[in-house]
Amino acid sequence: MRLKRVSPRAPLRLDDRDARVKDAPGDEKLKENTETQVERIADLQRTFYADGRFALLVVLQGRDASGKDGTIRNVFTGVNPQGIQVTSFKVPTEEELRHDFLWRIHQRVPARGMFGIFNRSHYEDVVVTRVNGIVPKAVWKSRYEQINEFETTLSDSGVRILKFFLHISRTEQKERLQKRLTNPEKNWKFNPGDLAERKKWSAYTTAYRDAIRRCNTRWAPWYVVPADDKKVRNYLIALTVADTLDSLKLRWPKADRDVIAHWID
Amino acid sequence: MRLKRVSPRAPLRLDDRDARVKDAPGDEKLKENTETQVERIADLQRTFYADGRFALLVVLQGRDASGKDGTIRNVFTGVNPQGIQVTSFKVPTEEELRHDFLWRIHQRVPARGMFGIFNRSHYEDVVVTRVNGIVPKAVWKSRYEQINEFETTLSDSGVRILKFFLHISRTEQKERLQKRLTNPEKNWKFNPGDLAERKKWSAYTTAYRDAIRRCNTRWAPWYVVPADDKKVRNYLIALTVADTLDSLKLRWPKADRDVIAHWID
Repeated sequence: MRLKRVSPRAPLRLDDRDARVKDAPGDEKLKENTETQVERIADLQRTFYADGRFALLVVLQGRDASGKDGTIRNVFTGVNPQGIQVTSFKVPTEEELRHDFLWRIHQRVPARGMFGIFNRSHYEDVVVTRVNGIVPKAVWKSRYEQINEFETTLSDSGVRILKFFLHISRTEQKERLQKRLTNPEKNWKFNPGDLAERKKWSAYTTAYRDAIRRCNTRWAPWYVVPADDKKVRNYLIALTVADTLDSLKLRWPKADRDVIAHWID
Repeated sequence: MRLKRVSPRAPLRLDDRDARVKDAPGDEKLKENTETQVERIADLQRTFYADGRFALLVVLQGRDASGKDGTIRNVFTGVNPQGIQVTSFKVPTEEELRHDFLWRIHQRVPARGMFGIFNRSHYEDVVVTRVNGIVPKAVWKSRYEQINEFETTLSDSGVRILKFFLHISRTEQKERLQKRLTNPEKNWKFNPGDLAERKKWSAYTTAYRDAIRRCNTRWAPWYVVPADDKKVRNYLIALTVADTLDSLKLRWPKADRDVIAHWID
């Protein structure tokens, strides 16, 4: 069981069936496997930080209650906080709106050596804005290419980009929102605005599908994550991140000869 | 065994003896106790984030190789990275130098709900600058009061401030710098500049002592941490952080009645 990047050719459905996997291992096994991957990530991060040739950018997108916060907590807790920076992009502020849509995003791109996690991202600017008619069609349409070029710029300077769409079904979202009302420890996460967005379910599906298809390059690939089962989601994302780090052939920088020649008294 | 805040009255020595504790438990016991505190921190952080009334600012200061990075890794790994922001303050950039010394610091103060960890801080501006004669005496002297007022402003807006001076002996520093030369996994941390600073040992002692004494308020207290033994250091800091969080009487925000009245279809 592993995620494949969204195929540039095959059709992309995003229907309710895709929110679950059929061949998932049992809960205990999944938890154990996830722990292994989380430890791998924490371990590889140490060399990644010292190596300093790459940055890692993880983009998390998905509907309300699709598990963006939970993914961060479950996959990246265990990473040395000195090496990771999480940014939650909210509704743009007045100042942010006086700039282009990539301005605030660019500022939060991780430096080499760092992990950067985007909880929502510039993809909101081709999804929410489109669904709610906040910008004209000509504007959001031209953003796809701008995003592709932006991500190319990052990739060219050493940023490894992984984009995950957390795909949940309509029923699962209902259950999760309901829990925010009934569980006192989750009350604070409830936002009445989420209900209005839920009503636009299929408009969001279209907008996400287009964004994923139009901005899906080899150097900034999308993964659609079956996210109705949180344990499956955590495992699949952790595995993908760990494998990506592993593929970088990280190394400890060697000291220069003149450094080794120093003597300390 | 626990840290006491630096007394505003008793003299502050910072000599080599203070870099160790006499009554430390054995290594195994220490590790176990630290784990307990680290778990307490991770656990309390979840409510802290939801509660949103406070921010936590942890300032780490200390000589080169005193263990600032190690403290962050050992005490705060395990905290959800979405709730914590680590800032390592380096030599100021040209742009930063065109501003007052608190400008870059202020930008990195954690928002309510967040932990902010400062790896070095505005205290460099009354220590390094003084030892190396980078600013005139009149300038660094007047900064103590400015720092106190700045920290008062933060505290008044809900920031809980804990300042730790990691106190190591001269012998221990030598050993640690030596290891950076001989251990390939530590090579990258070696900075020849550290040797020049080491030569100014007693000037640094004076500068740190004055800074700690002059900027030590009830709402932004200093703790001198005996840091020759890393396990002792980790335990003492973790305990202090956990106890501070515990004392805040954190709570899950309750939902409004009109929120609970919502129905999801």
